[in-house]
Amino acid sequence: MHFVDIIDKKKRGLQLSEDEIKEWIKGYVDGVYPDYQVSSLLMAILLKGMDEEETFNLTKAMMESGDIIDLSEIQGIKVDKHSTGGVGDKTTLSLMPMVASCGVKVAKMSGRGLGHTGGTLDKLESIPGFSISMSEEEFVNQVNNIGIAIIGQTANLVPADKKIYALRDVTATVDSIPLIASSIMSKKLASGTDVIVLDVKYGDGAFMPTLEKAEELSYEMIKIGKNYGKKVAACISGMDQPLGNAVGNALEVKEAIDTLKGKGPKDFTELCLATGAVILEQAGVTDRENGYKMMEESIADGSALEVLRKLIKAQGGDERIVDDETLLPQAPYITKLKSNKDGYVSELPAKAIGILAMNLGAGRETLEDEVDPSVGIVLNKKVGDRVEAGDVLAYIHHSKPLTQEWMNRFAQVIKLVPEAFEVAPVIEKIID
Amino acid sequence: MHFVDIIDKKKRGLQLSEDEIKEWIKGYVDGVYPDYQVSSLLMAILLKGMDEEETFNLTKAMMESGDIIDLSEIQGIKVDKHSTGGVGDKTTLSLMPMVASCGVKVAKMSGRGLGHTGGTLDKLESIPGFSISMSEEEFVNQVNNIGIAIIGQTANLVPADKKIYALRDVTATVDSIPLIASSIMSKKLASGTDVIVLDVKYGDGAFMPTLEKAEELSYEMIKIGKNYGKKVAACISGMDQPLGNAVGNALEVKEAIDTLKGKGPKDFTELCLATGAVILEQAGVTDRENGYKMMEESIADGSALEVLRKLIKAQGGDERIVDDETLLPQAPYITKLKSNKDGYVSELPAKAIGILAMNLGAGRETLEDEVDPSVGIVLNKKVGDRVEAGDVLAYIHHSKPLTQEWMNRFAQVIKLVPEAFEVAPVIEKIID
Repeated sequence: MHFVDIIDKKKRGLQLSEDEIKEWIKGYVDGVYPDYQVSSLLMAILLKGMDEEETFNLTKAMMESGDIIDLSEIQGIKVDKHSTGGVGDKTTLSLMPMVASCGVKVAKMSGRGLGHTGGTLDKLESIPGFSISMSEEEFVNQVNNIGIAIIGQTANLVPADKKIYALRDVTATVDSIPLIASSIMSKKLASGTDVIVLDVKYGDGAFMPTLEKAEELSYEMIKIGKNYGKKVAACISGMDQPLGNAVGNALEVKEAIDTLKGKGPKDFTELCLATGAVILEQAGVTDRENGYKMMEESIADGSALEVLRKLIKAQGGDERIVDDETLLPQAPYITKLKSNKDGYVSELPAKAIGILAMNLGAGRETLEDEVDPSVGIVLNKKVGDRVEAGDVLAYIHHSKPLTQEWMNRFAQVIKLVPEAFEVAPVIEKIID
Repeated sequence: MHFVDIIDKKKRGLQLSEDEIKEWIKGYVDGVYPDYQVSSLLMAILLKGMDEEETFNLTKAMMESGDIIDLSEIQGIKVDKHSTGGVGDKTTLSLMPMVASCGVKVAKMSGRGLGHTGGTLDKLESIPGFSISMSEEEFVNQVNNIGIAIIGQTANLVPADKKIYALRDVTATVDSIPLIASSIMSKKLASGTDVIVLDVKYGDGAFMPTLEKAEELSYEMIKIGKNYGKKVAACISGMDQPLGNAVGNALEVKEAIDTLKGKGPKDFTELCLATGAVILEQAGVTDRENGYKMMEESIADGSALEVLRKLIKAQGGDERIVDDETLLPQAPYITKLKSNKDGYVSELPAKAIGILAMNLGAGRETLEDEVDPSVGIVLNKKVGDRVEAGDVLAYIHHSKPLTQEWMNRFAQVIKLVPEAFEVAPVIEKIID
């Protein structure tokens, strides 16, 4: 088999066989096929597509390129959730303790942030002492003991995806549904849970530009997972504005805790309740309607907060932050951005705000950048909110003086309109 | 400018600007942009195309990546010819002396063979002592003195093409009309002649599979050349069977000499006469009809043969080969392939025969292979010819014993039909 013939076949729009896909993935991971051949194939896939069978075979070959986590020692139904990424997305921090408090087992691997999007690991590491590394055995034991563990990916989990993703990032081959679906699902399948609920975002701050694309990606991922005998569902939500109010690591941890105390932002709380109901349904605990009530109850009775406290403690973190937010990293300066006119907020573009927060030090421009856990933006108004001239639009938590240029950029991206309008629901669609 | 944005633009089918194309070519030659980004862009170009302006800008940027030969010191009209390559294609060896004998100046750079296709340089080097290297000054002087020089490309002629071509070869991005057209025309324009006549082949043994594709490529190349103020025309001919009878380096030199003595194969002689007429027309010497007669006369009066003799001598070769073919490298063995039935030859597939000759040592499988100048195949029958059982179909000149497997392969590719049929003309179309 010559690799150039595999590229040529895909370029002509033909279906690659399972053997050809396996040969590609194995040869690339083993260093037999160079980056320049794989990037050419990736562009051919992006432009010519892959059918359901090819996408499944690609997912399988990638999954099998490294370790597959064995969770069989964990009693009960194991669940995982994956967000396609966005701005202000601290969902894991609130939602996973909520579902764990209802008895399903949360065995979760999370990622880091890049560019305008944040990552759960960076948020968790803003908790003093919190460690995201442990052995597979420790991971299994912790889930058995307290019902939840959240760690970074093990080094050898889907090495093919690490290599291919890095290449896609620099060769304009990121935005391909089969490549995104196989990348996500190979990792989710390798991490071994029974239930996978996908939190798929679309819009300004997301990977997927439109609801249609988000649906397409959701269907692809669900098909792959079901072919593997997993319970899979997807919740599709908009990412035109940041989720919740806080954007920045420690600030988001605080907001997640507030949410578990019943004092969270409306949109973020609703996303957690609705997604949690889908997780409980998929896990066979109850139906979706009752699941929603159980999720509300997990906040009202403090049980979810209790799980978070245990999680922080088990992973070496200072669990006193749950009661005393001042123990989280604090930025030395807080500056207010005020409105100079009246109106209703119509635009809070997630991507621009994500980049503004990244510029403060809350995120990474490149993988090598260090993150400042204390800094970020806390929105005081969200889309649809009434604003009067002089009202605070946002609090900026910063560790270096703000430049006028940064402030101007921030002020310019927020748009007001004179008339009130209806705001879209947080979750647009649930697919299972 | 981020290179990934250039890839992304082309991937979305948008037009690349002149600056973006220049940035790509310069950055690639300078080693700033890695192979894996360029191969992704090449695949996007192959699948999304390039318009006339982009193709022109790419040709220009490639041409300007290295030396541009200055032929201004040569008096008169300078002409060049380019063949897109085939099997048995010794056209340069006969045709260029023919047109030089009519007073146009031939300043020609040629290439080497690869795979099933031969290269003029390998053929010239089968002449004992012949050198294909000289300085630009020597090149100009020789053309001024004897009207003709044929050399290898100077080391720094279109380095961008060398790099890009090597990458296309291993990334399934060869068969793109804009990439082929810009590759050929960048070299032709950099070599500085006034007239460029393109000998475009299609069919089994050629780059272009069909007449339509050959026409498309011809129009692209003519547009580029005319935009540069050059006189350009294209002669399109079939390459389903080898051109002439001989395939192999010294064997083709002998056939080229025979042709200049009026004893050449009918198809090859016709191609030289017709293409020469187009060259003379483009050079402003005379019209095409009269040019054809001048070409016939250049053979009849021995003037073209005289030019070839001078060319060989000027470049250090043993010009006595013109009169005594035994001074050319001779293979130790000649084996006959005979027909086992009667009929009319219907197929002599050029690619298969090119590969059979390559397997004898007449060509290269990889750029590092050595060529044996003496070996090859001389067809005794061509498509349309009557054959009786026992007739010789071909003479095989070889230096190692032939395997039965090789003989079987050769016998199997030649097809006969029971009925006589009309043979297509050599040149299908002339475009200017």
